[in-house]
Amino acid sequence: MSGNATSATVLGLGDMGSALAGALLGAGRPVTVWNRSADKAKPLVAKGAVAAESAAGAVAASELVIVCLLDDASVREVLGTVSLAGRAVVNLTNGTPRQARELAGWVAEQGGTFLDGGIMAIPPMIGQPGAFVFYSGPKDLFETHRAAFDTFGGSNYVGEDPGLAALHDLALLSGMYGQFIGILQAYALIRSEGLSAVEFAPLLSGWLGAMGGFAEEAAGQIDSGDYSKDVVSNLGMQAAAFENLPLAAADQGVSAELLAPLHQLLLRGAAEGHGAENLASVIELLKK
Amino acid sequence: MSGNATSATVLGLGDMGSALAGALLGAGRPVTVWNRSADKAKPLVAKGAVAAESAAGAVAASELVIVCLLDDASVREVLGTVSLAGRAVVNLTNGTPRQARELAGWVAEQGGTFLDGGIMAIPPMIGQPGAFVFYSGPKDLFETHRAAFDTFGGSNYVGEDPGLAALHDLALLSGMYGQFIGILQAYALIRSEGLSAVEFAPLLSGWLGAMGGFAEEAAGQIDSGDYSKDVVSNLGMQAAAFENLPLAAADQGVSAELLAPLHQLLLRGAAEGHGAENLASVIELLKK
Repeated sequence: MSGNATSATVLGLGDMGSALAGALLGAGRPVTVWNRSADKAKPLVAKGAVAAESAAGAVAASELVIVCLLDDASVREVLGTVSLAGRAVVNLTNGTPRQARELAGWVAEQGGTFLDGGIMAIPPMIGQPGAFVFYSGPKDLFETHRAAFDTFGGSNYVGEDPGLAALHDLALLSGMYGQFIGILQAYALIRSEGLSAVEFAPLLSGWLGAMGGFAEEAAGQIDSGDYSKDVVSNLGMQAAAFENLPLAAADQGVSAELLAPLHQLLLRGAAEGHGAENLASVIELLKK
Repeated sequence: MSGNATSATVLGLGDMGSALAGALLGAGRPVTVWNRSADKAKPLVAKGAVAAESAAGAVAASELVIVCLLDDASVREVLGTVSLAGRAVVNLTNGTPRQARELAGWVAEQGGTFLDGGIMAIPPMIGQPGAFVFYSGPKDLFETHRAAFDTFGGSNYVGEDPGLAALHDLALLSGMYGQFIGILQAYALIRSEGLSAVEFAPLLSGWLGAMGGFAEEAAGQIDSGDYSKDVVSNLGMQAAAFENLPLAAADQGVSAELLAPLHQLLLRGAAEGHGAENLASVIELLKK
Protein backbone atom coordinates (compact mmCIF):
# COMPACT_ATOMS: atom_id res chain seq x y z
CA MET A 1 0.00 0.00 0.00
CA SER A 2 1.34 3.45 -0.85
CA GLY A 3 2.17 6.08 1.75
CA ASN A 4 -1.23 7.67 1.87
CA ALA A 5 -3.92 5.01 1.70
CA THR A 6 -6.67 7.55 1.21
CA SER A 7 -5.25 9.28 -1.86
CA ALA A 8 -6.66 8.61 -5.32
CA THR A 9 -5.93 9.35 -8.93
CA VAL A 10 -8.65 10.08 -11.45
CA LEU A 11 -7.91 9.65 -15.16
CA GLY A 12 -10.38 11.39 -17.44
CA LEU A 13 -12.11 14.63 -16.53
CA GLY A 14 -15.25 14.68 -18.62
CA ASP A 15 -18.42 15.56 -16.71
CA MET A 16 -18.44 12.20 -14.96
CA GLY A 17 -14.71 11.98 -14.15
CA SER A 18 -14.81 15.54 -12.82
CA ALA A 19 -17.81 14.68 -10.64
CA LEU A 20 -15.98 11.62 -9.24
CA ALA A 21 -12.84 13.64 -8.49
CA GLY A 22 -14.99 16.34 -6.93
CA ALA A 23 -16.69 13.81 -4.64
CA LEU A 24 -13.30 12.50 -3.43
CA LEU A 25 -12.03 16.04 -2.85
CA GLY A 26 -15.26 16.87 -1.02
CA ALA A 27 -14.54 13.98 1.35
CA GLY A 28 -11.13 15.49 2.13
CA ARG A 29 -9.07 13.01 0.14
CA PRO A 30 -5.86 13.93 -1.70
CA VAL A 31 -6.64 13.63 -5.41
CA THR A 32 -4.36 13.62 -8.43
CA VAL A 33 -6.06 14.22 -11.76
CA TRP A 34 -5.13 13.91 -15.40
CA ASN A 35 -6.96 14.66 -18.60
CA ARG A 36 -5.81 14.70 -22.20
CA SER A 37 -6.78 18.37 -22.53
CA ALA A 38 -5.27 19.83 -19.39
CA ASP A 39 -7.69 22.75 -18.95
CA LYS A 40 -10.38 20.38 -17.67
CA ALA A 41 -8.26 19.98 -14.52
CA LYS A 42 -8.45 23.66 -13.56
CA PRO A 43 -11.74 23.66 -11.59
CA LEU A 44 -10.52 20.62 -9.63
CA VAL A 45 -7.11 22.15 -8.95
CA ALA A 46 -8.98 25.15 -7.57
CA LYS A 47 -10.62 22.72 -5.12
CA GLY A 48 -7.28 21.23 -4.07
CA ALA A 49 -6.51 18.54 -6.64
CA VAL A 50 -3.00 18.05 -8.02
CA ALA A 51 -2.88 18.05 -11.82
CA ALA A 52 -0.35 15.55 -13.17
CA GLU A 53 1.45 16.41 -16.41
CA SER A 54 1.09 12.89 -17.77
CA ALA A 55 -1.09 9.86 -17.25
CA ALA A 56 2.03 8.01 -16.09
CA GLY A 57 2.70 10.67 -13.46
CA ALA A 58 -0.92 10.55 -12.30
CA VAL A 59 -0.88 6.77 -11.98
CA ALA A 60 2.43 6.89 -10.09
CA ALA A 61 0.88 9.26 -7.54
CA SER A 62 -1.73 6.93 -5.99
CA GLU A 63 -2.30 3.25 -5.48
CA LEU A 64 -6.01 3.75 -6.28
CA VAL A 65 -6.48 4.72 -9.93
CA ILE A 66 -10.01 5.56 -11.02
CA VAL A 67 -10.47 5.55 -14.77
CA CYS A 68 -13.38 7.34 -16.40
CA LEU A 69 -12.67 7.87 -20.07
CA LEU A 70 -14.74 8.00 -23.25
CA ASP A 71 -14.77 4.29 -24.00
CA ASP A 72 -12.85 1.04 -23.76
CA ALA A 73 -10.49 2.00 -26.60
CA SER A 74 -9.51 5.19 -24.75
CA VAL A 75 -8.86 3.17 -21.60
CA ARG A 76 -6.53 0.79 -23.46
CA GLU A 77 -4.73 3.68 -25.10
CA VAL A 78 -4.15 5.65 -21.88
CA LEU A 79 -3.29 2.69 -19.65
CA GLY A 80 -0.93 1.39 -22.34
CA THR A 81 1.41 4.32 -21.61
CA VAL A 82 1.76 3.80 -17.84
CA SER A 83 3.13 1.33 -15.31
CA LEU A 84 0.34 -0.50 -13.50
CA ALA A 85 2.51 -2.54 -11.12
CA GLY A 86 0.93 -2.41 -7.67
CA ARG A 87 -1.94 -0.21 -8.83
CA ALA A 88 -5.62 -0.86 -8.08
CA VAL A 89 -7.31 0.07 -11.34
CA VAL A 90 -11.02 0.85 -10.96
CA ASN A 91 -12.60 1.30 -14.35
CA LEU A 92 -15.76 3.38 -14.30
CA THR A 93 -15.78 3.95 -18.06
CA ASN A 94 -18.98 2.84 -19.83
CA GLY A 95 -18.41 -0.55 -21.38
CA THR A 96 -19.59 -4.08 -21.86
CA PRO A 97 -19.04 -7.18 -19.70
CA ARG A 98 -16.62 -8.60 -22.26
CA GLN A 99 -14.56 -5.40 -22.33
CA ALA A 100 -14.34 -5.48 -18.52
CA ARG A 101 -13.26 -9.13 -18.47
CA GLU A 102 -10.59 -8.57 -21.11
CA LEU A 103 -9.36 -5.43 -19.39
CA ALA A 104 -9.13 -7.30 -16.07
CA GLY A 105 -6.85 -9.87 -17.69
CA TRP A 106 -4.71 -7.24 -19.34
CA VAL A 107 -4.30 -5.21 -16.12
CA ALA A 108 -3.29 -8.39 -14.26
CA GLU A 109 -0.60 -9.03 -16.89
CA GLN A 110 0.75 -5.55 -16.13
CA GLY A 111 0.95 -6.36 -12.42
CA GLY A 112 -2.13 -4.40 -11.38
CA THR A 113 -5.38 -5.42 -9.74
CA PHE A 114 -8.74 -4.53 -11.26
CA LEU A 115 -12.32 -3.70 -10.42
CA ASP A 116 -14.92 -2.71 -12.96
CA GLY A 117 -17.79 -0.40 -12.12
CA GLY A 118 -21.07 0.72 -13.62
CA ILE A 119 -22.32 4.13 -12.52
CA MET A 120 -26.11 4.40 -12.17
CA ALA A 121 -26.29 8.18 -12.13
CA ILE A 122 -25.69 11.22 -14.27
CA PRO A 123 -22.79 13.47 -13.24
CA PRO A 124 -24.81 16.01 -11.18
CA MET A 125 -26.13 13.11 -9.06
CA ILE A 126 -22.68 11.88 -7.97
CA GLY A 127 -22.42 12.04 -4.19
CA GLN A 128 -26.16 12.74 -3.92
CA PRO A 129 -28.90 10.45 -2.61
CA GLY A 130 -30.10 7.99 -5.24
CA ALA A 131 -26.75 7.63 -7.03
CA PHE A 132 -25.19 4.17 -6.88
CA VAL A 133 -22.40 2.25 -8.54
CA PHE A 134 -22.07 -1.46 -9.29
CA TYR A 135 -18.63 -3.00 -8.71
CA SER A 136 -17.26 -6.38 -9.73
CA GLY A 137 -13.90 -8.06 -9.34
CA PRO A 138 -11.95 -9.26 -6.27
CA LYS A 139 -14.06 -8.76 -3.15
CA ASP A 140 -11.07 -7.84 -0.95
CA LEU A 141 -10.05 -5.12 -3.38
CA PHE A 142 -13.57 -3.72 -3.26
CA GLU A 143 -13.55 -3.73 0.54
CA THR A 144 -10.12 -2.06 0.69
CA HIS A 145 -11.33 0.93 -1.31
CA ARG A 146 -14.96 0.95 -0.36
CA ALA A 147 -14.74 4.13 1.72
CA ALA A 148 -13.52 6.01 -1.35
CA PHE A 149 -16.27 4.47 -3.50
CA ASP A 150 -18.92 5.45 -0.99
CA THR A 151 -18.18 9.13 -1.69
CA PHE A 152 -19.73 8.60 -5.17
CA GLY A 153 -23.03 7.16 -3.89
CA GLY A 154 -24.22 3.73 -2.82
CA SER A 155 -21.66 0.97 -3.51
CA ASN A 156 -23.18 -2.25 -4.79
CA TYR A 157 -20.74 -5.17 -5.11
CA VAL A 158 -22.12 -7.78 -7.51
CA GLY A 159 -19.46 -10.49 -7.77
CA GLU A 160 -15.94 -11.67 -8.57
CA ASP A 161 -16.49 -11.92 -12.34
CA PRO A 162 -15.31 -8.46 -13.52
CA GLY A 163 -18.03 -8.44 -16.19
CA LEU A 164 -20.89 -8.39 -13.71
CA ALA A 165 -20.88 -4.67 -12.95
CA ALA A 166 -21.37 -3.80 -16.63
CA LEU A 167 -23.95 -6.58 -16.94
CA HIS A 168 -26.02 -5.15 -14.08
CA ASP A 169 -25.56 -1.61 -15.40
CA LEU A 170 -26.71 -2.53 -18.89
CA ALA A 171 -29.61 -4.62 -17.57
CA LEU A 172 -30.92 -1.59 -15.67
CA LEU A 173 -30.33 0.69 -18.65
CA SER A 174 -32.27 -1.78 -20.83
CA GLY A 175 -35.10 -1.59 -18.32
CA MET A 176 -35.01 2.20 -18.43
CA TYR A 177 -34.96 2.41 -22.22
CA GLY A 178 -37.92 0.04 -22.43
CA GLN A 179 -39.79 2.30 -20.07
CA PHE A 180 -38.83 5.29 -22.25
CA ILE A 181 -40.19 3.45 -25.30
CA GLY A 182 -43.55 3.03 -23.60
CA ILE A 183 -43.70 6.61 -22.38
CA LEU A 184 -42.78 8.04 -25.79
CA GLN A 185 -45.35 5.87 -27.58
CA ALA A 186 -48.06 6.79 -25.06
CA TYR A 187 -47.43 10.51 -25.47
CA ALA A 188 -47.23 10.20 -29.25
CA LEU A 189 -50.78 8.80 -29.24
CA ILE A 190 -52.08 11.42 -26.79
CA ARG A 191 -50.48 14.26 -28.75
CA SER A 192 -51.96 12.95 -32.01
CA GLU A 193 -55.27 14.42 -30.79
CA GLY A 194 -53.62 17.58 -29.51
CA LEU A 195 -54.20 16.53 -25.89
CA SER A 196 -51.82 17.65 -23.18
CA ALA A 197 -49.00 15.30 -22.19
CA VAL A 198 -48.71 17.20 -18.91
CA GLU A 199 -52.35 16.44 -18.08
CA PHE A 200 -51.94 12.80 -19.09
CA ALA A 201 -48.67 12.37 -17.15
CA PRO A 202 -50.15 11.54 -13.71
CA LEU A 203 -52.39 8.87 -15.23
CA LEU A 204 -49.44 7.39 -17.11
CA SER A 205 -47.14 7.47 -14.07
CA GLY A 206 -49.78 5.85 -11.87
CA TRP A 207 -50.45 3.17 -14.46
CA LEU A 208 -46.76 2.38 -14.96
CA GLY A 209 -46.36 2.17 -11.19
CA ALA A 210 -49.22 -0.34 -11.00
CA MET A 211 -48.06 -2.36 -14.02
CA GLY A 212 -44.46 -2.37 -12.75
CA GLY A 213 -45.56 -5.30 -10.60
CA PHE A 214 -44.71 -7.33 -13.71
CA ALA A 215 -41.04 -7.10 -12.70
CA GLU A 216 -41.67 -9.05 -9.48
CA GLU A 217 -44.31 -11.31 -11.00
CA ALA A 218 -42.23 -12.37 -14.00
CA ALA A 219 -39.02 -12.91 -12.02
CA GLY A 220 -40.13 -16.15 -10.38
CA GLN A 221 -41.50 -17.49 -13.66
CA ILE A 222 -38.25 -16.65 -15.43
CA ASP A 223 -36.03 -18.25 -12.78
CA SER A 224 -38.12 -21.44 -12.84
CA GLY A 225 -38.66 -21.50 -16.60
CA ASP A 226 -42.27 -22.45 -15.84
CA TYR A 227 -44.73 -20.02 -17.40
CA SER A 228 -47.82 -22.16 -16.99
CA LYS A 229 -48.88 -21.21 -13.45
CA ASP A 230 -51.43 -18.57 -12.42
CA VAL A 231 -52.03 -17.46 -16.00
CA VAL A 232 -54.62 -14.68 -16.06
CA SER A 233 -54.11 -12.81 -19.32
CA ASN A 234 -52.27 -15.30 -21.47
CA LEU A 235 -49.78 -14.71 -24.27
CA GLY A 236 -52.28 -15.67 -26.97
CA MET A 237 -54.86 -13.17 -25.72
CA GLN A 238 -52.24 -10.46 -25.42
CA ALA A 239 -50.83 -11.17 -28.87
CA ALA A 240 -54.35 -10.83 -30.32
CA ALA A 241 -55.23 -7.68 -28.36
CA PHE A 242 -51.87 -6.14 -29.31
CA GLU A 243 -53.10 -5.81 -32.91
CA ASN A 244 -55.02 -2.67 -31.97
CA LEU A 245 -51.82 -0.81 -31.08
CA PRO A 246 -50.34 -0.60 -34.59
CA LEU A 247 -53.84 -0.21 -36.11
CA ALA A 248 -54.67 2.74 -33.88
CA ALA A 249 -51.22 4.27 -34.27
CA ALA A 250 -51.55 4.15 -38.07
CA ASP A 251 -55.00 5.78 -37.93
CA GLN A 252 -53.61 8.50 -35.67
CA GLY A 253 -50.57 9.17 -37.89
CA VAL A 254 -48.14 7.78 -35.35
CA SER A 255 -45.39 5.27 -36.08
CA ALA A 256 -45.66 2.03 -34.10
CA GLU A 257 -42.05 1.09 -34.83
CA LEU A 258 -40.95 1.14 -31.19
CA LEU A 259 -43.39 -1.61 -30.18
CA ALA A 260 -43.21 -3.68 -33.38
CA PRO A 261 -40.53 -6.15 -32.21
CA LEU A 262 -42.50 -7.02 -29.06
CA HIS A 263 -45.58 -7.58 -31.21
CA GLN A 264 -43.61 -9.96 -33.43
CA LEU A 265 -42.23 -11.74 -30.38
CA LEU A 266 -45.72 -12.24 -28.90
CA LEU A 267 -47.00 -13.61 -32.20
CA ARG A 268 -43.99 -15.92 -32.47
CA GLY A 269 -44.46 -17.15 -28.90
CA ALA A 270 -48.13 -17.88 -29.56
CA ALA A 271 -47.34 -19.56 -32.90
CA GLU A 272 -44.72 -21.76 -31.26
CA GLY A 273 -47.26 -23.19 -28.82
CA HIS A 274 -46.92 -20.87 -25.81
CA GLY A 275 -50.26 -19.09 -26.27
CA ALA A 276 -51.71 -20.45 -23.01
CA GLU A 277 -48.65 -19.41 -20.97
CA ASN A 278 -47.76 -16.17 -19.26
CA LEU A 279 -46.35 -13.36 -21.39
CA ALA A 280 -42.96 -13.64 -19.69
CA SER A 281 -42.40 -16.88 -21.61
CA VAL A 282 -41.28 -14.83 -24.63
CA ILE A 283 -38.00 -14.17 -22.82
CA GLU A 284 -36.98 -17.68 -23.92
CA LEU A 285 -37.16 -16.45 -27.53
CA LEU A 286 -34.53 -13.82 -26.77
CA LYS A 287 -31.89 -16.50 -26.20
CA LYS A 288 -29.65 -16.82 -29.20
CA MET B 1 -86.22 5.89 -20.18
CA SER B 2 -87.44 2.32 -19.70
CA GLY B 3 -89.47 1.19 -16.72
CA ASN B 4 -86.56 0.30 -14.51
CA ALA B 5 -83.78 2.88 -14.85
CA THR B 6 -81.26 0.77 -12.98
CA SER B 7 -81.53 -2.34 -15.13
CA ALA B 8 -78.82 -3.21 -17.64
CA THR B 9 -78.19 -5.65 -20.45
CA VAL B 10 -74.79 -7.20 -21.07
CA LEU B 11 -74.01 -8.63 -24.51
CA GLY B 12 -71.04 -10.97 -24.54
CA LEU B 13 -70.09 -13.20 -21.63
CA GLY B 14 -66.44 -13.91 -22.06
CA ASP B 15 -64.35 -13.45 -18.93
CA MET B 16 -64.66 -9.68 -19.10
CA GLY B 17 -68.38 -9.50 -20.00
CA SER B 18 -69.14 -11.99 -17.23
CA ALA B 19 -67.14 -9.90 -14.75
CA LEU B 20 -69.06 -6.75 -15.78
CA ALA B 21 -72.44 -8.49 -15.44
CA GLY B 22 -71.31 -9.90 -12.09
CA ALA B 23 -70.40 -6.42 -10.82
CA LEU B 24 -73.84 -5.06 -11.79
CA LEU B 25 -75.57 -8.01 -10.13
CA GLY B 26 -73.40 -7.55 -7.06
CA ALA B 27 -74.68 -3.98 -6.82
CA GLY B 28 -78.26 -5.27 -6.79
CA ARG B 29 -79.13 -4.24 -10.34
CA PRO B 30 -81.47 -6.27 -12.58
CA VAL B 31 -79.31 -7.66 -15.37
CA THR B 32 -80.24 -9.32 -18.63
CA VAL B 33 -77.45 -11.22 -20.36
CA TRP B 34 -76.87 -12.76 -23.74
CA ASN B 35 -74.03 -14.73 -25.25
CA ARG B 36 -73.70 -16.59 -28.54
CA SER B 37 -73.04 -19.86 -26.68
CA ALA B 38 -75.78 -19.81 -24.07
CA ASP B 39 -74.02 -21.92 -21.41
CA LYS B 40 -71.80 -18.95 -20.50
CA ALA B 41 -74.94 -17.35 -19.00
CA LYS B 42 -75.48 -20.10 -16.41
CA PRO B 43 -73.21 -18.83 -13.59
CA LEU B 44 -74.79 -15.38 -13.94
CA VAL B 45 -78.33 -16.74 -13.99
CA ALA B 46 -77.44 -18.54 -10.74
CA LYS B 47 -76.63 -15.09 -9.33
CA GLY B 48 -79.97 -13.63 -10.48
CA ALA B 49 -79.41 -12.58 -14.09
CA VAL B 50 -82.06 -13.15 -16.75
CA ALA B 51 -80.72 -14.94 -19.80
CA ALA B 52 -82.28 -13.65 -23.04
CA GLU B 53 -82.75 -16.10 -25.88
CA SER B 54 -81.55 -13.64 -28.49
CA ALA B 55 -79.45 -10.50 -28.68
CA ALA B 56 -82.59 -8.68 -29.82
CA GLY B 57 -84.48 -9.81 -26.73
CA ALA B 58 -81.61 -8.81 -24.48
CA VAL B 59 -81.39 -5.34 -26.03
CA ALA B 60 -85.17 -4.90 -25.73
CA ALA B 61 -84.96 -5.61 -21.98
CA SER B 62 -82.94 -2.55 -20.85
CA GLU B 63 -82.24 0.97 -21.98
CA LEU B 64 -78.58 0.54 -20.96
CA VAL B 65 -76.84 -1.99 -23.20
CA ILE B 66 -73.27 -2.88 -22.34
CA VAL B 67 -71.40 -4.59 -25.15
CA CYS B 68 -68.27 -6.63 -24.48
CA LEU B 69 -67.55 -8.89 -27.42
CA LEU B 70 -64.45 -10.27 -29.10
CA ASP B 71 -63.76 -7.37 -31.43
CA ASP B 72 -65.32 -4.61 -33.50
CA ALA B 73 -66.48 -7.03 -36.22
CA SER B 74 -68.41 -9.05 -33.62
CA VAL B 75 -70.02 -5.86 -32.31
CA ARG B 76 -71.20 -4.90 -35.80
CA GLU B 77 -72.52 -8.39 -36.43
CA VAL B 78 -74.48 -8.67 -33.17
CA LEU B 79 -75.82 -5.11 -33.11
CA GLY B 80 -76.82 -5.48 -36.77
CA THR B 81 -79.53 -7.96 -35.70
CA VAL B 82 -81.27 -5.77 -33.10
CA SER B 83 -83.26 -2.54 -32.76
CA LEU B 84 -81.20 0.20 -31.11
CA ALA B 85 -83.91 2.89 -31.01
CA GLY B 86 -83.81 4.54 -27.59
CA ARG B 87 -80.94 2.38 -26.39
CA ALA B 88 -77.80 3.67 -24.70
CA VAL B 89 -75.08 1.50 -26.20
CA VAL B 90 -71.90 1.38 -24.12
CA ASN B 91 -69.18 -0.45 -26.01
CA LEU B 92 -66.51 -1.91 -23.75
CA THR B 93 -65.10 -4.17 -26.48
CA ASN B 94 -61.37 -3.72 -27.18
CA GLY B 95 -60.98 -1.52 -30.24
CA THR B 96 -59.36 1.47 -31.83
CA PRO B 97 -60.37 5.15 -31.77
CA ARG B 98 -61.49 4.94 -35.39
CA GLN B 99 -63.66 1.89 -34.74
CA ALA B 100 -65.31 3.73 -31.83
CA ARG B 101 -65.97 6.83 -33.93
CA GLU B 102 -67.46 4.82 -36.78
CA LEU B 103 -69.56 2.75 -34.41
CA ALA B 104 -70.87 5.93 -32.74
CA GLY B 105 -72.08 7.19 -36.12
CA TRP B 106 -73.67 3.89 -37.00
CA VAL B 107 -75.49 3.57 -33.64
CA ALA B 108 -76.81 7.12 -34.05
CA GLU B 109 -78.23 6.18 -37.46
CA GLN B 110 -80.09 3.34 -35.74
CA GLY B 111 -81.62 5.78 -33.25
CA GLY B 112 -79.37 4.87 -30.33
CA THR B 113 -76.92 6.85 -28.26
CA PHE B 114 -73.34 5.72 -27.77
CA LEU B 115 -70.47 5.75 -25.34
CA ASP B 116 -67.21 3.96 -25.89
CA GLY B 117 -65.11 2.63 -23.04
CA GLY B 118 -61.63 1.29 -22.44
CA ILE B 119 -61.25 -1.06 -19.47
CA MET B 120 -57.94 -0.74 -17.62
CA ALA B 121 -58.16 -4.02 -15.76
CA ILE B 122 -58.17 -7.75 -16.24
CA PRO B 123 -61.45 -9.55 -15.48
CA PRO B 124 -60.64 -10.58 -11.87
CA MET B 125 -59.96 -6.91 -11.04
CA ILE B 126 -63.44 -5.68 -12.07
CA GLY B 127 -65.15 -4.07 -9.09
CA GLN B 128 -61.89 -4.17 -7.12
CA PRO B 129 -59.64 -1.28 -6.11
CA GLY B 130 -57.29 -0.21 -8.89
CA ALA B 131 -59.64 -1.08 -11.77
CA PHE B 132 -60.78 1.85 -13.87
CA VAL B 133 -62.51 2.47 -17.17
CA PHE B 134 -62.16 5.33 -19.64
CA TYR B 135 -65.40 6.60 -21.23
CA SER B 136 -65.94 8.94 -24.16
CA GLY B 137 -69.02 10.25 -25.94
CA PRO B 138 -71.86 12.54 -24.80
CA LYS B 139 -71.17 13.79 -21.28
CA ASP B 140 -74.84 13.70 -20.23
CA LEU B 141 -75.12 10.07 -21.29
CA PHE B 142 -72.07 9.26 -19.18
CA GLU B 143 -73.57 11.06 -16.17
CA THR B 144 -76.93 9.31 -16.58
CA HIS B 145 -75.32 5.87 -16.30
CA ARG B 146 -72.34 6.68 -14.15
CA ALA B 147 -73.68 4.85 -11.09
CA ALA B 148 -73.81 1.63 -13.10
CA PHE B 149 -70.30 2.26 -14.48
CA ASP B 150 -68.94 2.85 -11.00
CA THR B 151 -69.72 -0.77 -10.12
CA PHE B 152 -66.89 -1.79 -12.53
CA GLY B 153 -64.22 0.41 -10.93
CA GLY B 154 -63.20 4.05 -11.23
CA SER B 155 -65.01 5.88 -14.06
CA ASN B 156 -62.79 8.25 -16.01
CA TYR B 157 -64.64 10.41 -18.58
CA VAL B 158 -62.19 11.72 -21.18
CA GLY B 159 -64.27 13.69 -23.69
CA GLU B 160 -67.07 13.98 -26.23
CA ASP B 161 -65.09 12.48 -29.14
CA PRO B 162 -66.06 8.79 -28.90
CA GLY B 163 -62.53 7.80 -29.97
CA LEU B 164 -60.87 9.21 -26.88
CA ALA B 165 -61.54 6.31 -24.52
CA ALA B 166 -59.76 3.87 -26.84
CA LEU B 167 -56.99 6.43 -27.41
CA HIS B 168 -56.34 6.72 -23.68
CA ASP B 169 -56.61 2.97 -23.24
CA LEU B 170 -54.10 2.25 -26.00
CA ALA B 171 -51.75 4.99 -24.81
CA LEU B 172 -51.57 3.37 -21.38
CA LEU B 173 -51.20 -0.09 -22.91
CA SER B 174 -48.34 1.24 -25.05
CA GLY B 175 -46.71 2.54 -21.89
CA MET B 176 -47.14 -0.83 -20.23
CA TYR B 177 -45.74 -2.81 -23.15
CA GLY B 178 -42.72 -0.53 -23.30
CA GLN B 179 -42.13 -1.22 -19.63
CA PHE B 180 -42.48 -4.96 -20.34
CA ILE B 181 -39.86 -4.65 -23.10
CA GLY B 182 -37.40 -3.14 -20.66
CA ILE B 183 -38.09 -5.70 -17.95
CA LEU B 184 -37.76 -8.65 -20.34
CA GLN B 185 -34.51 -7.33 -21.80
CA ALA B 186 -33.08 -6.67 -18.32
CA TYR B 187 -33.88 -10.20 -17.14
CA ALA B 188 -32.58 -11.74 -20.37
CA LEU B 189 -29.18 -10.15 -19.66
CA ILE B 190 -29.20 -11.15 -15.98
CA ARG B 191 -30.20 -14.73 -16.81
CA SER B 192 -27.46 -14.97 -19.45
CA GLU B 193 -25.02 -15.35 -16.52
CA GLY B 194 -27.36 -17.68 -14.65
CA LEU B 195 -28.11 -15.00 -12.04
CA SER B 196 -31.45 -14.93 -10.27
CA ALA B 197 -34.18 -12.70 -11.67
CA VAL B 198 -35.91 -12.84 -8.28
CA GLU B 199 -32.81 -11.41 -6.58
CA PHE B 200 -32.43 -8.75 -9.26
CA ALA B 201 -36.13 -7.79 -9.18
CA PRO B 202 -36.01 -5.29 -6.26
CA LEU B 203 -33.09 -3.44 -7.88
CA LEU B 204 -34.94 -3.33 -11.19
CA SER B 205 -38.21 -2.19 -9.62
CA GLY B 206 -36.46 0.53 -7.62
CA TRP B 207 -34.59 1.73 -10.68
CA LEU B 208 -37.72 1.80 -12.87
CA GLY B 209 -39.51 3.73 -10.15
CA ALA B 210 -36.70 6.30 -10.07
CA MET B 211 -36.41 6.53 -13.87
CA GLY B 212 -40.20 6.77 -14.24
CA GLY B 213 -39.71 10.47 -13.48
CA PHE B 214 -39.08 10.70 -17.24
CA ALA B 215 -42.87 10.62 -17.74
CA GLU B 216 -43.34 13.91 -15.85
CA GLU B 217 -40.10 15.43 -17.12
CA ALA B 218 -40.75 14.73 -20.80
CA ALA B 219 -44.40 15.82 -20.72
CA GLY B 220 -43.68 19.54 -20.52
CA GLN B 221 -41.04 19.30 -23.22
CA ILE B 222 -43.42 17.41 -25.48
CA ASP B 223 -46.31 19.83 -24.99
CA SER B 224 -44.06 22.82 -25.73
CA GLY B 225 -42.12 21.14 -28.55
CA ASP B 226 -38.99 22.70 -27.00
CA TYR B 227 -36.37 20.08 -26.13
CA SER B 228 -33.46 22.48 -25.64
CA LYS B 229 -33.96 23.40 -21.97
CA ASP B 230 -32.28 21.80 -18.92
CA VAL B 231 -30.46 19.22 -21.02
CA VAL B 232 -28.34 17.01 -18.75
CA SER B 233 -27.75 13.80 -20.66
CA ASN B 234 -28.34 14.79 -24.24
CA LEU B 235 -29.61 12.71 -27.15
CA GLY B 236 -26.19 12.53 -28.80
CA MET B 237 -24.55 11.19 -25.65
CA GLN B 238 -27.34 8.68 -25.14
CA ALA B 239 -27.25 7.55 -28.76
CA ALA B 240 -23.50 6.91 -28.39
CA ALA B 241 -23.77 5.16 -25.01
CA PHE B 242 -26.63 3.02 -26.33
CA GLU B 243 -24.15 1.17 -28.56
CA ASN B 244 -23.08 -0.94 -25.58
CA LEU B 245 -26.54 -2.48 -25.25
CA PRO B 246 -26.56 -4.46 -28.51
CA LEU B 247 -22.82 -5.17 -28.17
CA ALA B 248 -23.22 -6.62 -24.69
CA ALA B 249 -26.39 -8.49 -25.62
CA ALA B 250 -24.62 -10.15 -28.56
CA ASP B 251 -21.67 -11.17 -26.36
CA GLN B 252 -24.09 -12.63 -23.82
CA GLY B 253 -26.09 -14.56 -26.43
CA VAL B 254 -29.17 -12.37 -25.99
CA SER B 255 -31.15 -10.79 -28.81
CA ALA B 256 -31.33 -7.00 -28.66
CA GLU B 257 -34.26 -6.88 -31.08
CA LEU B 258 -36.67 -5.32 -28.57
CA LEU B 259 -34.56 -2.19 -28.13
CA ALA B 260 -33.28 -1.90 -31.71
CA PRO B 261 -35.94 0.55 -32.99
CA LEU B 262 -35.24 2.98 -30.13
CA HIS B 263 -31.52 2.78 -30.92
CA GLN B 264 -32.25 3.61 -34.56
CA LEU B 265 -34.51 6.47 -33.51
CA LEU B 266 -31.83 7.96 -31.23
CA LEU B 267 -29.25 7.73 -34.01
CA ARG B 268 -31.68 9.33 -36.47
CA GLY B 269 -32.48 12.14 -34.03
CA ALA B 270 -28.78 12.83 -33.48
CA ALA B 271 -28.04 12.65 -37.22
CA GLU B 272 -30.86 15.10 -37.96
CA GLY B 273 -29.32 17.74 -35.72
CA HIS B 274 -31.02 17.10 -32.37
CA GLY B 275 -27.98 15.66 -30.61
CA ALA B 276 -27.76 18.53 -28.11
CA GLU B 277 -31.46 18.26 -27.17
CA ASN B 278 -33.26 16.14 -24.64
CA LEU B 279 -34.02 12.54 -25.54
CA ALA B 280 -37.76 13.24 -25.65
CA SER B 281 -37.20 15.12 -28.92
CA VAL B 282 -37.29 11.79 -30.77
CA ILE B 283 -41.07 11.74 -30.27
CA GLU B 284 -41.21 14.19 -33.19
CA LEU B 285 -39.78 11.43 -35.41
CA LEU B 286 -42.75 9.21 -34.57
CA LYS B 287 -45.13 11.56 -36.40
CA LYS B 288 -46.01 10.19 -39.81
